[in-house]
Amino acid sequence: MKKNVLVIGAGGVGQVVVHKCAQNNELLGDIHIASRTVEKCQRIIASVHEKNALKTHGALQAHALDALDVAATVRLIKQTGAQIVINVGSSFLNMSVLSACIETGAAYIDTAIHEDPAKICETPPWYANYEWKRRAECERSGLTAILGAGFDPGVVNSYAKFACDSYFDRVQSIDIVDINAGRHGRYFATNFDPEINFREFTGQVWSWQNSKWTSNKMFEVSREWNLPVVGLQKAYLTGHDEVHSLSQLLGVPNVRFWMGFSDHYINVFTVLKSLGLLSEQPIRTAEGLQVVPLKVVKAVLPDPASLAPDYEGKTCIGTLVEGERAGKPHQAFVYNVADHKQAYQEVGSQGISYTAGVPAVAAALLIASGEWDVRRMANVEELPPQPFLRQLNRLGLPTRIVQNGLDSPVDPV
Amino acid sequence: MKKNVLVIGAGGVGQVVVHKCAQNNELLGDIHIASRTVEKCQRIIASVHEKNALKTHGALQAHALDALDVAATVRLIKQTGAQIVINVGSSFLNMSVLSACIETGAAYIDTAIHEDPAKICETPPWYANYEWKRRAECERSGLTAILGAGFDPGVVNSYAKFACDSYFDRVQSIDIVDINAGRHGRYFATNFDPEINFREFTGQVWSWQNSKWTSNKMFEVSREWNLPVVGLQKAYLTGHDEVHSLSQLLGVPNVRFWMGFSDHYINVFTVLKSLGLLSEQPIRTAEGLQVVPLKVVKAVLPDPASLAPDYEGKTCIGTLVEGERAGKPHQAFVYNVADHKQAYQEVGSQGISYTAGVPAVAAALLIASGEWDVRRMANVEELPPQPFLRQLNRLGLPTRIVQNGLDSPVDPV
Repeated sequence: MKKNVLVIGAGGVGQVVVHKCAQNNELLGDIHIASRTVEKCQRIIASVHEKNALKTHGALQAHALDALDVAATVRLIKQTGAQIVINVGSSFLNMSVLSACIETGAAYIDTAIHEDPAKICETPPWYANYEWKRRAECERSGLTAILGAGFDPGVVNSYAKFACDSYFDRVQSIDIVDINAGRHGRYFATNFDPEINFREFTGQVWSWQNSKWTSNKMFEVSREWNLPVVGLQKAYLTGHDEVHSLSQLLGVPNVRFWMGFSDHYINVFTVLKSLGLLSEQPIRTAEGLQVVPLKVVKAVLPDPASLAPDYEGKTCIGTLVEGERAGKPHQAFVYNVADHKQAYQEVGSQGISYTAGVPAVAAALLIASGEWDVRRMANVEELPPQPFLRQLNRLGLPTRIVQNGLDSPVDPV
Repeated sequence: MKKNVLVIGAGGVGQVVVHKCAQNNELLGDIHIASRTVEKCQRIIASVHEKNALKTHGALQAHALDALDVAATVRLIKQTGAQIVINVGSSFLNMSVLSACIETGAAYIDTAIHEDPAKICETPPWYANYEWKRRAECERSGLTAILGAGFDPGVVNSYAKFACDSYFDRVQSIDIVDINAGRHGRYFATNFDPEINFREFTGQVWSWQNSKWTSNKMFEVSREWNLPVVGLQKAYLTGHDEVHSLSQLLGVPNVRFWMGFSDHYINVFTVLKSLGLLSEQPIRTAEGLQVVPLKVVKAVLPDPASLAPDYEGKTCIGTLVEGERAGKPHQAFVYNVADHKQAYQEVGSQGISYTAGVPAVAAALLIASGEWDVRRMANVEELPPQPFLRQLNRLGLPTRIVQNGLDSPVDPV
């Protein structure tokens, strides 16, 4: 039974995580939030109070922290008495925060893979480059470290595990589909940090096909999907974290990730990329100023958090599993539909942040209850899906399934 | 009879000007070239020697100069004994260089209107904002200052004057059409300094219609043109220098400028502009670095001079005059077709630089001969067109005319 949560990162996802922790503080204990910019933490705390979101009276405190500084993070964990750390800061911080957790014994949760700022799209499987190198270290110190516990990666991994176990004798393929059918009303914006967002699409696209790593270019392969609620949608084969764990952990010969993009998004992205404006390598202006083009693009784009008030429409994210059941071909699509406006009304963030943040709190609750306090490093598909899906149902991300032409809720017992 | 030329600016146009001056140095005397970066001048001089372009033995020298520094420019004019200054540097320099010319008595030639770096698209007529305020000063000191003596503005103004005088009793409209049907093989590039190039299209589009200034948005008004050699081309109503002098000096009720753009150019431009990346106002990155987005875009785009070796195809730039002759509607299209590859072979620059630079040298030759040494400030349409068109024929930019369905060369006597 662990308690007291330190949330690292005060962006849109941090906002969701803190709100959801507050709504469940009778189970989670004290809540602390830390960011380089303490004012961002204070704004989130103010919004929690504004919505009267704390379930019971309890600590809710802001801290200034550079989470690349392991010693400072260790001090803050000790000072706050946090036994669970939810890391939703920049992907560049993961390994530092993990080190601080190992040193203090606080359970670690993140929602996206570790990245080196200087590298894009490293050798697959990505988890083997940083995270899995530290599996033994976690095992030795009995540290619970849950990797990629957002929606995708995270919930979709659990969907895959749940469907494979429950409905299939043999699985041929896992396809994860992520469609944001929402509208923010701006000319162009990314739904989270543009620097991280664009990095996803500037390298090669790795997928796992016929039990081999296959490389494609971004926007090279697309497929039409007919999905619940959001309807017919075009999505593109995209490199994504969960392909790099599911392929290694579930023994399925085909694992692919598909993300929906509008023609407008692709056009803007293509122009920026073709001109070299998405480069993370510094260039020099005629006046001699050294600058990273991607950081300039980030500076002119809308702050993703600013999109929330006007965001409308729904997301549909799910896992399609195909294989055999009782000797016959079978398929199941396990999914969730989230609504941008509802998310904003509840926690002041748009739906993309909501779907990423809520599962991390579900994971924290399962560590607090002991169900997921596994005292080792684990990707989500290595953990029992039932308690996770139950928590998600309760926390506002209900699971549904389409199977044999029937669309029904999933309520695992 | 003036001689010895100082060329200010060592970009693509400077390269053309120096080559053409060298080819005519028996008439122009010593040739000097100055730029902030003296190495650029030296490279141009090397290319003149490489092509053996000096007509006769004579001085050809490079100088480092910040032409915003009037005193330094005065010193260089005196030191070189230049009696003609051809200013093909940045548009931000014009008024400083003009001051140095007034102080020394050296004749002044430029090819584009003066611009204030902090302002875009000022009140029409643009010439009244800076240049024409100094008409009296030039008159008093007997200074020859020829404004806008490139191709457009410049040659097209002379085409207008020539056609109005030679073929019309009454003129209703002057439409200048600028089509570059060339291909440089890059994803995207501007044909001259991107900072100046984009500034042309980010403000409102001023045209002179029914004897009034009319404002449109860029890419709002387009028209299909069927032109000699380059064929059917779509061009857009665009703000441009010559509209601001022809409208005031020739008494014609409609003066418009049309520039051809590919759909691809418009798309890239629209994306960059919509995102705020063409702004000349500084922004601040998340890391606190202050930077002007337009300067970053300039830094990632190809150097316009680097396009020359691969540039293929032709430009067609001309003036369509419509009105009455002997009581009947009449129209005349006076134009030139230039070839990118030929320009590169002759002077090492692409066709856009060639068409801009050659007319300035024609103007210099007419000042040297006395024909245009008018000892006052003048736009090109205020000067006799015949000697100019004769020089242009001789220098590689022959004039043709389409009239009464007949396409024929113009060789004014």
